Amino acid sequence: MRMVDIIEKKRDGHPLTKEEIQFFIDGYVKGDIPDYQASAFTMAVYFKGMNEEETSYLTDAMMHSGDMIDLSGIEGIKVDKHSTGGVGDKTSLAVGPLVAACGGKVAKMSGRGLGHTGGTLDKLESIPGVRILRTSEEFVKQVNDIGIAIVGQTAQIDPADKKLYALRDVTATVESIPLIASSIMSKKLASGSNAILLDVKFGSGAFMKTKERARELAKEMVKIGKLLGRDTRAILTDMDQPLGLAVGNALEVKEAIDTLKGNGPRDFVELCIGAGATMLTQAKLAPDVIVGRAMIEKAIEDGSGLAKLRQLIEAQNGDPTYIDDPSKFPLAKYIEPIYSESEGYVRHIDSLGIGVGAMKLGAGREKMDDTIVMSAGIVLNKKVGDKVNKGDILCYCHTDKEDRQAIYKDIHDCFVLSPDFVARPPIIHEVID
Amino acid sequence: MRMVDIIEKKRDGHPLTKEEIQFFIDGYVKGDIPDYQASAFTMAVYFKGMNEEETSYLTDAMMHSGDMIDLSGIEGIKVDKHSTGGVGDKTSLAVGPLVAACGGKVAKMSGRGLGHTGGTLDKLESIPGVRILRTSEEFVKQVNDIGIAIVGQTAQIDPADKKLYALRDVTATVESIPLIASSIMSKKLASGSNAILLDVKFGSGAFMKTKERARELAKEMVKIGKLLGRDTRAILTDMDQPLGLAVGNALEVKEAIDTLKGNGPRDFVELCIGAGATMLTQAKLAPDVIVGRAMIEKAIEDGSGLAKLRQLIEAQNGDPTYIDDPSKFPLAKYIEPIYSESEGYVRHIDSLGIGVGAMKLGAGREKMDDTIVMSAGIVLNKKVGDKVNKGDILCYCHTDKEDRQAIYKDIHDCFVLSPDFVARPPIIHEVID
Repeated sequence: MRMVDIIEKKRDGHPLTKEEIQFFIDGYVKGDIPDYQASAFTMAVYFKGMNEEETSYLTDAMMHSGDMIDLSGIEGIKVDKHSTGGVGDKTSLAVGPLVAACGGKVAKMSGRGLGHTGGTLDKLESIPGVRILRTSEEFVKQVNDIGIAIVGQTAQIDPADKKLYALRDVTATVESIPLIASSIMSKKLASGSNAILLDVKFGSGAFMKTKERARELAKEMVKIGKLLGRDTRAILTDMDQPLGLAVGNALEVKEAIDTLKGNGPRDFVELCIGAGATMLTQAKLAPDVIVGRAMIEKAIEDGSGLAKLRQLIEAQNGDPTYIDDPSKFPLAKYIEPIYSESEGYVRHIDSLGIGVGAMKLGAGREKMDDTIVMSAGIVLNKKVGDKVNKGDILCYCHTDKEDRQAIYKDIHDCFVLSPDFVARPPIIHEVID
Repeated sequence: MRMVDIIEKKRDGHPLTKEEIQFFIDGYVKGDIPDYQASAFTMAVYFKGMNEEETSYLTDAMMHSGDMIDLSGIEGIKVDKHSTGGVGDKTSLAVGPLVAACGGKVAKMSGRGLGHTGGTLDKLESIPGVRILRTSEEFVKQVNDIGIAIVGQTAQIDPADKKLYALRDVTATVESIPLIASSIMSKKLASGSNAILLDVKFGSGAFMKTKERARELAKEMVKIGKLLGRDTRAILTDMDQPLGLAVGNALEVKEAIDTLKGNGPRDFVELCIGAGATMLTQAKLAPDVIVGRAMIEKAIEDGSGLAKLRQLIEAQNGDPTYIDDPSKFPLAKYIEPIYSESEGYVRHIDSLGIGVGAMKLGAGREKMDDTIVMSAGIVLNKKVGDKVNKGDILCYCHTDKEDRQAIYKDIHDCFVLSPDFVARPPIIHEVID
């Protein structure tokens, strides 16, 4: 078998066999197939796509390119949630503890933030002392003990994806449904959960700009997950405005705590209930989502979700008093309001712009070696559908930066007003299973 | 400027600027842009193409990536011919001397054969002692002295093409009109001739399989040449059967000599007259191709073309007595006929199959370090349109190989017979200027 023939076959639109895809992944991970052939191949896939079987072969080959986490030591159905990423997405921090409080086994593998958003690990580390688990022994033990654990991705998990993703990033071959789907699913499948809920976001702040593309990606991933024997479902959620109100690491952790105390913003609470309910049905702890919703709502009301978050933080060596008293989180040097220069109904909030603004205020990494300022970020005061008068506060900016007026200007301009009434949009648009 | 943005722009079908294309070629030749970005880029070009301006920018950037041969020391219009390559293509060996005999200045840069065919240089070296010129000083002097010289491509000419072609070859991005056109034209333009005749072949034995694709390539190259200020014309010629009768290095040199003696095969003679006539008009030595044809025919009849070939060989240190007496060329160990197993009119001769057959008999390189057996090859006894009876000789195989029966079988099967009468096809189908 020769890689050049495999590239040509894909270039000409013919489906590849399991053996050909295996040959590519094996050779690429070993270094026998050079980057320049892999990048020509991914560009051919960008243009010609892959069918369901090919994508599942690719996922399977990537998943087996490194270690597979063995969760068989955990009793019951292990359920994981994955988000394709958005601005203000702190869902795992709230829905994980809620599901675990209802008896679910939440074995979550998380990454760090690469772009304008911090990842779940970055957010968690705004609590002093928090240690990310590194071995599957620790992981299995903690899930057995308290029902939830968050582990970092190790270099031994899915090396094919790491190598291929880094290559795609510099060769303009990221935006390909089969490549995105196999990248996400191979990691999720290698991390060992039996059931996976995918939160596929769409809109200006998401990777998928339209609902149609998000649906396509979600369907592809659900199919792959099922073909490879896992209960996989997806929700399509709105990212045409930031999720909730807080954007920025400590700010988001505080919002997750508020939410578990029953004081969360409307859209974020609804996402936690909807996602949590689906996960409970996947874990066979609820017969349907109606019952699942009631269970999650109760876990908010009775404080058991908050108690579970406290237990998680304590188990992972963090200081649990930050959960009891979020005023302990340090504040940014400057907390300043952005006033509206016009009036109307908020029609749209440019999530990508808010994400980039928060990053520039210090919440994310502009360059690989930038350090994240945990207290930095943006807290919205208006959401889509809200009435705004001239001079009303649109949001608050939290930052240590001295040179910040130009950033504020851009953040102001992320709010698009309309003279006409605008209805509040739903957060979950579709469930795919 | 970032290469990833240039790849993305092309991937999305937007035309690139002169600066972007220059940035790519400069960075790639210097090594600042890695192979994996170049291959993703060429695959994007494969799918999205390039417009006329982009292709001329690319050609210009590649042409200037290395040395430019300065032929200003040669008086008059310098004319070069380039063939896209075919099976049995010994045209340069005959048409060059014919044009030079008519007063043309033929400054020809040639390469070695990569695939199943030897290149012009390989063929010439079947004459003992022949030395390929290496410097432009030698080149200029010899063209001034005798009107013709053949120089090898040096590493200093068009390094961008060398690097890019090697990459395209292993990433399935060879078959792209703008990439082929810029590759051919950048080399030709760097080699300094004022006028260029392109012989673009089509059919089973050619790079372009259909006349339409060949026309597209030819038009593209003629446009680029004109945009960059050279008199560029093209002929579309048939490669649905091998050119002439001989395939293989010494066999082809002998056929070129025979042709200059007035004993050439019909199609090859016609190609030499047609191509030579066009070159004479480009050199402004003939007012039109009618006069040009008469001049070339005369140079065959009066032996001045043959004398010019003898002079060329002598000037380049070869033994000219091989021209006087071609029986001096060594013969292969086995010269064996292939008999027809059926009867009819020859409808088609699979040129690619004949080329591969000749290569396997020893005439070409299967692997990079294979040595070419100069005497090996195939001599056709039947061409398209000929009547064949069962048991007639289709061709003769010349080889030193002991293990040759399977090769013979494949060569036999290259001849496709039809019960119905088949007309002899023309060799030159179109002239594009």
